[in-house]
Amino acid sequence: MSHTAELIAVGTELLLGNIANTDAQMLSQGLSALGINVYYHTVVGDNPGRLRAAVDLAKSRADLIITTGGLGPTCDDLTKNVLAECFGRKLVYNAEAEARCRSFFQKIGREMTANNAQQFYVPEGAVVFQNDWGTAPGCAFEEGGVHVLMLPGPPRECTAMFRHRAVPYLRALSEGAIVSRTLKLFGIGESGMEELLREKMNAMENPTLAPYAKEGECELRITAKAPTEAEARALIAPVEEELRALFGHKIYGADISSLEEAVFALLRERGLTLGSAESCTGGLIAKRMTDLPGSSAVFRGGVVSYTNAVKEGVLGVPHALLEEYGAVSEPVARAMAEGARRVLGCDIAVSTTGVAGPDSDDRGNPVGLVYVAIATPEGTRVRELHAGSGRERVRTAAAHNAFDLVRRYLTK
Amino acid sequence: MSHTAELIAVGTELLLGNIANTDAQMLSQGLSALGINVYYHTVVGDNPGRLRAAVDLAKSRADLIITTGGLGPTCDDLTKNVLAECFGRKLVYNAEAEARCRSFFQKIGREMTANNAQQFYVPEGAVVFQNDWGTAPGCAFEEGGVHVLMLPGPPRECTAMFRHRAVPYLRALSEGAIVSRTLKLFGIGESGMEELLREKMNAMENPTLAPYAKEGECELRITAKAPTEAEARALIAPVEEELRALFGHKIYGADISSLEEAVFALLRERGLTLGSAESCTGGLIAKRMTDLPGSSAVFRGGVVSYTNAVKEGVLGVPHALLEEYGAVSEPVARAMAEGARRVLGCDIAVSTTGVAGPDSDDRGNPVGLVYVAIATPEGTRVRELHAGSGRERVRTAAAHNAFDLVRRYLTK
Repeated sequence: MSHTAELIAVGTELLLGNIANTDAQMLSQGLSALGINVYYHTVVGDNPGRLRAAVDLAKSRADLIITTGGLGPTCDDLTKNVLAECFGRKLVYNAEAEARCRSFFQKIGREMTANNAQQFYVPEGAVVFQNDWGTAPGCAFEEGGVHVLMLPGPPRECTAMFRHRAVPYLRALSEGAIVSRTLKLFGIGESGMEELLREKMNAMENPTLAPYAKEGECELRITAKAPTEAEARALIAPVEEELRALFGHKIYGADISSLEEAVFALLRERGLTLGSAESCTGGLIAKRMTDLPGSSAVFRGGVVSYTNAVKEGVLGVPHALLEEYGAVSEPVARAMAEGARRVLGCDIAVSTTGVAGPDSDDRGNPVGLVYVAIATPEGTRVRELHAGSGRERVRTAAAHNAFDLVRRYLTK
Repeated sequence: MSHTAELIAVGTELLLGNIANTDAQMLSQGLSALGINVYYHTVVGDNPGRLRAAVDLAKSRADLIITTGGLGPTCDDLTKNVLAECFGRKLVYNAEAEARCRSFFQKIGREMTANNAQQFYVPEGAVVFQNDWGTAPGCAFEEGGVHVLMLPGPPRECTAMFRHRAVPYLRALSEGAIVSRTLKLFGIGESGMEELLREKMNAMENPTLAPYAKEGECELRITAKAPTEAEARALIAPVEEELRALFGHKIYGADISSLEEAVFALLRERGLTLGSAESCTGGLIAKRMTDLPGSSAVFRGGVVSYTNAVKEGVLGVPHALLEEYGAVSEPVARAMAEGARRVLGCDIAVSTTGVAGPDSDDRGNPVGLVYVAIATPEGTRVRELHAGSGRERVRTAAAHNAFDLVRRYLTK
């Protein structure tokens, strides 16, 4: 049986935007890895009528419903009552849930308030998911071919309860495996990528191929279903090979999250160090490198030379160069990268200088014009960008390109 | 008319858990500030039938439907087609959308592929939300008492389009005025804030008071409804006054988005300049300052001294200090800030040095220990933090505290 799942998150705090529904993201990832298709996420408030409507709809079209939230001790916590009602079950007392709840309060040295008692009740005949990470137990039952699972809402509890309670329950239900592999591309737009692949993608059924675009990068995700993980991987391999032949060096990695991660791995592999001199990106390159745990092994540091005085004084960019060409120029990008390499004592340095906007610079250079340079033991290269408008877009594109220059240098 | 809204997010990437539905969170907050109740969030994949089902359901019970996603150039992008069909409208060509899209591609120096053409079409009679932050326009129309708004999915675009296009459209629909004012707090936790305010908040009806917590900061949003904007503001004023008396200097601003924005305004007002020396934050402070348009007027630059060699060589931190106390120490934080002030030639410099994790440092300093310093013409101050664990949390807390030191220095 191939399952069709719906997720229902219960909580007015989600509808007010106090928190994002990260439980749904976590569950979707986990269900996809189990070969279970998720067709809808729904969020409802702590309102019995609207929750009932969502459950009735879900049971008409899905054979697996997972709820998150609304299992706690307060009067807002109505998920169990509504679900039990929708599926015609009574709530019954569970002695272990009470014992665990009492011992939890003992451990944290707090009095157990009376309202906690509602957590001791579960739908009759349900498998109880005891909660080692909080007080509210979850549960699962099957009724008329529909499996219902209820998990607590707090993300930490929800994640642990899913992994340790729900996954074993679901594994017993599901057949086969779904495996995804994501190729990351830089230097091609989503529409360009899709144009090349549209026919192919439409014709594919297993594996499927899906394009994604985010912040100036693209992804291609290959997803295969098969009885076993190994068989699913075997379906993916030839598609990946074909895509690699098609896109070549535009593919910078598979199943990694960013260009800087690719750069980090290459630098570490080769025992080389990196530094940065940033004008328009203003620290973004350094920030992205140092987001990565362990980056101190390869990243020596950076200079954010937001003013000409810092370009001259710290990086040693010649005053005459700044006078003659202006800060946003190929020669200054070059001198910044070379200066950073010298001052920071790194093997490779990148630099950026450009107009992030909103206004053009005092020499009339347009928003989006950026020079990105890389200085290496073998010399310096500069790439000129026209990155469109929007401060964040220009800065992101400049940083992407700096990392791309390093990646291409290290894999050439 | 009081509106009832449903949000429908379109995108298989959401159902696969590749991304969380942060658009729904952002929109929920924004709608709540407009006095619009949100009763359901739904997520559907790039599937016309299931999207149609979600829309048909939403139009049966809401008078405002906002979709996010599915407006781009690829064949997955079907939101406009499905919504137009559900509401019996044709799609018609929009010349400005084409002109904007072409000029966008021209600006970034890339060929516009043919599939972009689907972005030039909008439902007949719709108000077009031109997109200054990407290529896909949004739109809005009303049919049978239901208002439909479509916004692009990428969070950056969705946020900008909501703020600058959808909010003015929605404001025009509502009778009377709803005005919100958001006080921003630093240096107090959400539970502490709530504890102080719970009774007050529960008793309030107009204005209402809602607490939010995010990334180590807190917000208090006061929302008032009244026939006119002036009357709404008059309801807010005494509540704001009371909260300011209660929280004092912990409130760093109203209706501004971040600590760095407060710092930027103060520096500009006083004609002072800032610089940074960052170890554990690795460029985050500089990046956040330079995220702000016009920051070159006050931000001179920064040094990311991720290694001791850069602390010594560029910032002039004495070797003996690093030897004796280690990089993560009060004296080194002090020397970094003073060095940055000298080297960068700024009036005020901040520095950070700490253990962002995941591992403790070679001297056994625990993850989360951070020294943040500020050097000014009147001397240097160091703040010691214990910022918990989690690399991002520690770095964010360190940067927040650096800005907080500047703000407090400038307003003391």
